[in-house]
Amino acid sequence: MTSLQPHGTSLSGTSQPPTSHPARHQEKHHRHQARSVAEHAAAVAELLQPLRSPGRTEVLPLGEALGRGLVKDVTAPISLPPFANSQMDGYAIRSADLPDDGGELRVMRPVPAGASPDALQRGTAAPIMTGAMLPEGADAVVPIERAVPDRFLPPTKQSTAQATVKLPAAAPGTYVREAGSDVQAGQTALGAGTFLGPAQLGLLAALGIPEVTVYRAVTVLLVTTGDEVVEPGQDLPAGKIYDSNGTLLETAMRQAGLEVRRAGIVTDNPGKLRELLRAEGAAVDLIVTTGGVSKGAYEVVRQAMEDQPVEFLHVAMQPGGPQGIGTFDGQPFLGFPGNPVSCLVSFEMFLRPVLGRLLGAPAPRLPIRARLGQPLTSPENKHQVRRGTLQPDGTVELQGGESSHLMHALAGSNVLLHVPQGVAELGAGAEVEVWML
Amino acid sequence: MTSLQPHGTSLSGTSQPPTSHPARHQEKHHRHQARSVAEHAAAVAELLQPLRSPGRTEVLPLGEALGRGLVKDVTAPISLPPFANSQMDGYAIRSADLPDDGGELRVMRPVPAGASPDALQRGTAAPIMTGAMLPEGADAVVPIERAVPDRFLPPTKQSTAQATVKLPAAAPGTYVREAGSDVQAGQTALGAGTFLGPAQLGLLAALGIPEVTVYRAVTVLLVTTGDEVVEPGQDLPAGKIYDSNGTLLETAMRQAGLEVRRAGIVTDNPGKLRELLRAEGAAVDLIVTTGGVSKGAYEVVRQAMEDQPVEFLHVAMQPGGPQGIGTFDGQPFLGFPGNPVSCLVSFEMFLRPVLGRLLGAPAPRLPIRARLGQPLTSPENKHQVRRGTLQPDGTVELQGGESSHLMHALAGSNVLLHVPQGVAELGAGAEVEVWML
Repeated sequence: MTSLQPHGTSLSGTSQPPTSHPARHQEKHHRHQARSVAEHAAAVAELLQPLRSPGRTEVLPLGEALGRGLVKDVTAPISLPPFANSQMDGYAIRSADLPDDGGELRVMRPVPAGASPDALQRGTAAPIMTGAMLPEGADAVVPIERAVPDRFLPPTKQSTAQATVKLPAAAPGTYVREAGSDVQAGQTALGAGTFLGPAQLGLLAALGIPEVTVYRAVTVLLVTTGDEVVEPGQDLPAGKIYDSNGTLLETAMRQAGLEVRRAGIVTDNPGKLRELLRAEGAAVDLIVTTGGVSKGAYEVVRQAMEDQPVEFLHVAMQPGGPQGIGTFDGQPFLGFPGNPVSCLVSFEMFLRPVLGRLLGAPAPRLPIRARLGQPLTSPENKHQVRRGTLQPDGTVELQGGESSHLMHALAGSNVLLHVPQGVAELGAGAEVEVWML
Repeated sequence: MTSLQPHGTSLSGTSQPPTSHPARHQEKHHRHQARSVAEHAAAVAELLQPLRSPGRTEVLPLGEALGRGLVKDVTAPISLPPFANSQMDGYAIRSADLPDDGGELRVMRPVPAGASPDALQRGTAAPIMTGAMLPEGADAVVPIERAVPDRFLPPTKQSTAQATVKLPAAAPGTYVREAGSDVQAGQTALGAGTFLGPAQLGLLAALGIPEVTVYRAVTVLLVTTGDEVVEPGQDLPAGKIYDSNGTLLETAMRQAGLEVRRAGIVTDNPGKLRELLRAEGAAVDLIVTTGGVSKGAYEVVRQAMEDQPVEFLHVAMQPGGPQGIGTFDGQPFLGFPGNPVSCLVSFEMFLRPVLGRLLGAPAPRLPIRARLGQPLTSPENKHQVRRGTLQPDGTVELQGGESSHLMHALAGSNVLLHVPQGVAELGAGAEVEVWML
């Protein structure tokens, strides 16, 4: 593992270098000077950079590589299509054999898909099936529907070479899929870092490639903390709430292709938390906690990390401002805040995109433009992330307010909506960036 | 299993009833009269309706229910939040205790999150942590940053009841999350048929519900056919191509939460295909084949289904027009065409949305509006599905042409783009519906 500089000066991977980047001692003294979203994403990228090491790759059959990221460029070993073939069921012809008003051609042996046909003689037409190799000499296909007769003759009659067919003229190339028209042998078929979904894996299969080198799945130890949280299914004493962070983050991470180990709920006892992290943290790639990172009097995660190179800071983001970042006994560590919406926003803003850029997976959230269905306000010095539902007409309806505890509103949303730093209010109809969940 | 009428007159689930619906004998005679996309989707829905039976449900812990559909409405057993609580680390106060210009209050015992606090006496302020229960009598919270001093006193000093804090005035309700402000006990928290993603499962956890009744995963027997296809990794004889349909559809189905059994490649031998379907078809919910459904001379799937109630027809869609639908030995059967893009479009247009509507999973593709980056043409009598990449500015660039063999172009796309029946051409800048892949 390389040395970690979660708040170092390198900002590779972000599009927006900050004008001033606080060094560690400044951060501690000016604790109200918040780090920008881009700066924190860069710090997370630097923390997780070692996940990109060659030792963390594996070779998988295509079917098992779904949802992983490609380690190296894949060069096409063959062209696609590998040979010129017919786009239709019909007759393969030499276009020069037919005058402009069409004519009659002698019918040769049919060419089924998969066959390697004989060359086409002048003045003949070969019945040809969709996808079948075009015979040498043929340069066009007339669909069966345009032939007279408009259905194929029985094979016995065809092979006697006495049958003829009346066909209209066709320009060279008509209904022919040229060799290499999709991709040429030697071209880069997929670039390093490509997310492998069904279409990308289907392309590898079409190229005859049966297995692929991908980054290993990232394993996470997920620990939810707090004296106030109780496991779902148990009794709920006064003042307590059920833990939703564990389920929310575990399933969000698994949906993104991470492997998650849950460690139950840790109460506000720093010693117990340290014990747990020592017992289970070494076996994973990353430790993620929820809660206990802000400025209250009982911040278990802060307390457990006292002798570790972990920084607790404020990101200029709402919700999800308080964040912890560093290492615990050398293992990468991220401390998310305790409210469920803050947790999910932290994952979506920092961990998910950073892993996608580093390892090609998960796939990025595609940013799309939408128009606000109603006005909103936002703290001007923060990047605000709201929840909403994208309507078929391209407007987005806000769900719930800006508060980070609104799980029901989150469950009714299908997008995250971004209000950048520097914006204090937006009117109905204003264009905003949204990410589909 | 109920009787199947894949081309029956019921069109429940479609928004667009046809003006005339061909009965079976008409379909056979007028084979150029294509079925609309909506009609075929309705036929698939009718075929798969039995998957919705009560016998196909199961109860799963939340973590295992990711990606499934909810069978019944879930009523909130508790309100969220369960009690009024603080949105900030700060001081819980009675707002009436402070004049407009603020004042000094005696500091009481702090309220950590998870505690059940004593009532707040007049003229006092209780240090309170984010998420902690508001003491009876308190009606507002002043954030610690606005207090003097602006950090909490050591617990020893607080409990002596000699300490005071200077606070600004606050209106009733300030920084208080009221009980039930997210969802009220007795309200429907999630409706039947809801797709269970991280946010929905997180909500169930927040409500204290540890397990949930969902529809079982649908199992599919996937058979790719054709004399021309060879497994990736083997040698490629002249005239042959590698099978990409198997990988493409298997991974698309698995990504959508289906369980897939692959049966390798079946050559153009109808007897062997029947044998395979008899051996393996009874153990699955649905049989899907690719290839062998159009009007060529060697259509193995058509031939294998000769004595089965299966219809082969043309849907007014490009690509993916030729389709088979019915039952094989009583098991639901869909025959997709043989080109890879046609396969994927068939899955996305018929199987995926129909399962989503029937079983709540997979999640629907959210339709969004985009502007064409370049003009296109489309057969006016068909619904055309093109591939493209959605740009950050909301335009969509077409990838590849309309041809259905272009796997490389598909692998470079992130959206499907819809050109409805009745539209022959669209100019650059025209608004179209796209589905994100």
